[in-house]
Amino acid sequence: MKVAVMGCGTVGSGAVEILENKKELLAAKCGEPVELKYILDIRDLSDRPYGKKAVKDIGLILNDPEIGVVVETMGGLKPAFDFCLQCLNAGKSVVTSNKEMVAVKGDELLAAARANNVCFAFEAAVCGGIPLIRTMFSDLGANRLTGFDGIMNGTTNFILTKMIKEKMSFDTALKLAQELGFAEKDPTADVEGIDACRKTAILASIAFGTHVLPEEIPTEGITRITLEDAAYAADANAEIKLICKAERLPDGKVYAAVCPAFVSRNTMIANVSGVNNAVAVRGDSVGEVFLYGPGAGKEATASAVIGDVLACVRLKKNEDHYYWEPHREGVLCEKGENTVSLYVRGYAKHMETAAREIRETFDSVRFLSRDNAPANELAFITGKGKEKDLFEAVGEIRDFASASVIRVL
Amino acid sequence: MKVAVMGCGTVGSGAVEILENKKELLAAKCGEPVELKYILDIRDLSDRPYGKKAVKDIGLILNDPEIGVVVETMGGLKPAFDFCLQCLNAGKSVVTSNKEMVAVKGDELLAAARANNVCFAFEAAVCGGIPLIRTMFSDLGANRLTGFDGIMNGTTNFILTKMIKEKMSFDTALKLAQELGFAEKDPTADVEGIDACRKTAILASIAFGTHVLPEEIPTEGITRITLEDAAYAADANAEIKLICKAERLPDGKVYAAVCPAFVSRNTMIANVSGVNNAVAVRGDSVGEVFLYGPGAGKEATASAVIGDVLACVRLKKNEDHYYWEPHREGVLCEKGENTVSLYVRGYAKHMETAAREIRETFDSVRFLSRDNAPANELAFITGKGKEKDLFEAVGEIRDFASASVIRVL
Repeated sequence: MKVAVMGCGTVGSGAVEILENKKELLAAKCGEPVELKYILDIRDLSDRPYGKKAVKDIGLILNDPEIGVVVETMGGLKPAFDFCLQCLNAGKSVVTSNKEMVAVKGDELLAAARANNVCFAFEAAVCGGIPLIRTMFSDLGANRLTGFDGIMNGTTNFILTKMIKEKMSFDTALKLAQELGFAEKDPTADVEGIDACRKTAILASIAFGTHVLPEEIPTEGITRITLEDAAYAADANAEIKLICKAERLPDGKVYAAVCPAFVSRNTMIANVSGVNNAVAVRGDSVGEVFLYGPGAGKEATASAVIGDVLACVRLKKNEDHYYWEPHREGVLCEKGENTVSLYVRGYAKHMETAAREIRETFDSVRFLSRDNAPANELAFITGKGKEKDLFEAVGEIRDFASASVIRVL
Repeated sequence: MKVAVMGCGTVGSGAVEILENKKELLAAKCGEPVELKYILDIRDLSDRPYGKKAVKDIGLILNDPEIGVVVETMGGLKPAFDFCLQCLNAGKSVVTSNKEMVAVKGDELLAAARANNVCFAFEAAVCGGIPLIRTMFSDLGANRLTGFDGIMNGTTNFILTKMIKEKMSFDTALKLAQELGFAEKDPTADVEGIDACRKTAILASIAFGTHVLPEEIPTEGITRITLEDAAYAADANAEIKLICKAERLPDGKVYAAVCPAFVSRNTMIANVSGVNNAVAVRGDSVGEVFLYGPGAGKEATASAVIGDVLACVRLKKNEDHYYWEPHREGVLCEKGENTVSLYVRGYAKHMETAAREIRETFDSVRFLSRDNAPANELAFITGKGKEKDLFEAVGEIRDFASASVIRVL
């Protein structure tokens, strides 16, 4: 079976290099040779070692009966989605690393794969080299999945690690991340949680079997986190992490969110430092399984792409049965219906009323301290309650630029 | 496709319960019903809800063309191995949780599966509910695996956790583990590393493609670890863990061992507490992936068994291509050819000579301290060197009952 790669950027060229350099290993893994035939790219690849395989017309791929698997590593929705749909409809399995496309159009692509009896696989779209999609869908296939907590964006985790471990300010840490190539010049998609939100949408769709759209998931970035918050977190024996979360609530609805959160230092996820990613997946039989590793990078992501290519070559048909139902309303809970505790920091004059109200409504308020806090600063963690009730009790504090409200897991 | 379960003990009954109670979920995961037809057991199962499926003659399973997948959860070599071989030769895929059988006879069973174009899968044989076998073999299939470090025995990890976190003695911690059902009445297989060794043999066989036998792997248990060692480990910012390790050395040979080791607290594996298991797997493309979860238990292990059953139902033929070459001499390195540092503790009169000798041969000796150490006690960590050279330099210290020599990862 022969393979085509569409998009020879960072991940695509990594995939091409594995296909070209590890032929023997790949053949042993699926019992037949895996040969790269075409590389589709608008750029001129003639100076590359594999330049002779470069093509510019997708028709060559669609109409070549030898091509059984097409790798899409172009990114973005246009033209990637149309190209992938055409490939599936031409009876070719598709492997992608494109999280935006899977998050927005995954249900349509899975339906097309099923209709054409081929595979649509996207291990590389979530957390780079960590085997997460096949693990959740197949290896844990005996489980009703009940939820997950993840750190799915390496850039923000790097920034938070620097802030907490080295007392670096957000701006300095972001600048360092940019210098090291961990953050883009425009870091919005990372620091505002947009990238993490797409991955959360994909994993929630797998876990609960119905397409969850990124725009449905309440998403908060890390730009409001301060060193003061990090100091209070330390007093609570916690780290601050950008957490991607989904869980099935007792009423059957799904809660999903991307937000900074206090995470107890006694958990594995609190120990995830730097650019690595990790996800704790919960199932009704297995309990909790925690997977950790490189969430990005050329080689690690290409490892996931080629793992999927091998599965497609082995399976021939739609035998992995990846599938989730098309998007519909009412899968997610109403905003604020989940149970949570809050960390609240602000000036005493605003806080005392809030603390009293919270103490009257919920079980307990635990005050935190830090070195060199101004005399009029107060910080506490509330007892557990319905998120919308807690937000109401906290009231206007959230609107003060000098205040901070962070969820506690 | 119909399923038979051989051996309805703890794991077997867990598998039976998932097959009976989650029919809709399982059918969705493989596109067809998965029906349990027979349960083979020498015990009387007539009082169980699924008692009508109980049989005592394996011939029924072997000769029934409806049976496509046979689950072996009997344990031990006899008659499990003969039964599994007969099933494979009768054209049935086999799923097992039997680590002894896979560690000792895996190559023969994989060859039989290949010859009969069926699957032989054993996710549940290593680290219970953690998806490790398929991850290493398939999901990381684009990688040349270079090694792994694991905590693969929950009993010893529970004991070491209690010793280090709560200053419990080995004997008290073992007794507690027995009371909680984490350790057998005869704890030899756990505390002497025999159980961990079997799992190491299986993962080494997968990682390096040739059958490694348990008896080839140098194995040390945790019975000589003391609270003094734990105190010195803390001074070195390390935990003591029973580590299952294998890695490819620069000369192409494989180093494999099971032994207690100092593990830096900055690593994920040092944070694995209690009965959980974890393995860090390294590959040339992905870097390192770390998997953590329940290493034992009825439901978690049954989750792995049924994950394999689903794969067998989906695949029909030998499409997972699990395989390793039969055992041969010379795959493993000579004992002591690996590179390591040693922690050494003993009485000063023996230690000073050793420390001087080590300092002359290797780079550095780092002395450790602990509270309330007797005046004549010395403890240090050596620089890195070839293990056999270090052991030679340490000399007779290893033979003193009052001394301790532990590898440092």
